Amino acid sequence: MSRPVTPAIAADVIIELSDRPGRPVVFIERLNPPHGWALPGGFVDIGETVEAAAVREAREETGLEVELKALLGCYSKPDRDPRGHTVSLVFVAEAAGTPEARDDAKNLHIRPPDQPPAPLVFDHPRILQHYLRYRRGQPLSPLNLG
Amino acid sequence: MSRPVTPAIAADVIIELSDRPGRPVVFIERLNPPHGWALPGGFVDIGETVEAAAVREAREETGLEVELKALLGCYSKPDRDPRGHTVSLVFVAEAAGTPEARDDAKNLHIRPPDQPPAPLVFDHPRILQHYLRYRRGQPLSPLNLG
Repeated sequence: MSRPVTPAIAADVIIELSDRPGRPVVFIERLNPPHGWALPGGFVDIGETVEAAAVREAREETGLEVELKALLGCYSKPDRDPRGHTVSLVFVAEAAGTPEARDDAKNLHIRPPDQPPAPLVFDHPRILQHYLRYRRGQPLSPLNLG
Repeated sequence: MSRPVTPAIAADVIIELSDRPGRPVVFIERLNPPHGWALPGGFVDIGETVEAAAVREAREETGLEVELKALLGCYSKPDRDPRGHTVSLVFVAEAAGTPEARDDAKNLHIRPPDQPPAPLVFDHPRILQHYLRYRRGQPLSPLNLG
């Protein structure tokens, strides 16, 4: 049976560093286009769950072993990724220790989430706005956020 | 640039009929394999959001215009669909009026969600269990459910 043609699917992770004051967040500088800063993440492989992909991509790009805490939302606007239509499931996670830029990440910054490095690529500024609302204790509502 | 090979992505919808006592739910009998009963839904097209796909599939299979209310969860176990690895975003929605089986649906049942028709295909029994928890007022936690 031929497989349906659908958007690609990715997992992105907002990593809170739980052992640092203010629980700052990890941003990576992308090695590949589009160039700029982003949340760690990447495409889901066939045969792995979206959650496993999120944990794997966080490990590959930052060296951190993350624990997923929440699904922030599903982001699927067709123009959100210039490489082609990609649906992203965005997770909030926590980790301890010192991240290091690896794999597709050429540099890494640890920042308060309201002071991200610039420029942020994709729709990650919008995702970060939704995360700041979640972090302020507003109810998580993936549908309205997505 | 070559596109990444990722799982297929689908949207499924739990449709509550808001104008009927007890707010029963719509199940469709599948025309295509795997045969059996399922929640309405289908593959996301390139160029449409996941939410738009959910509304479109509900319309195509039941004739109902649904309003999405919540994202129940993201289901991505590799073996959940015998046709190949498919990630499903499952929404809770409501609609009024009389649904009719259309398109890929050859029959349709309106049932209380704890009395679905049998057999339910894919991982829809598990999704329905999560929905029953949500409906009993337990907090929506897409991550733990997924």
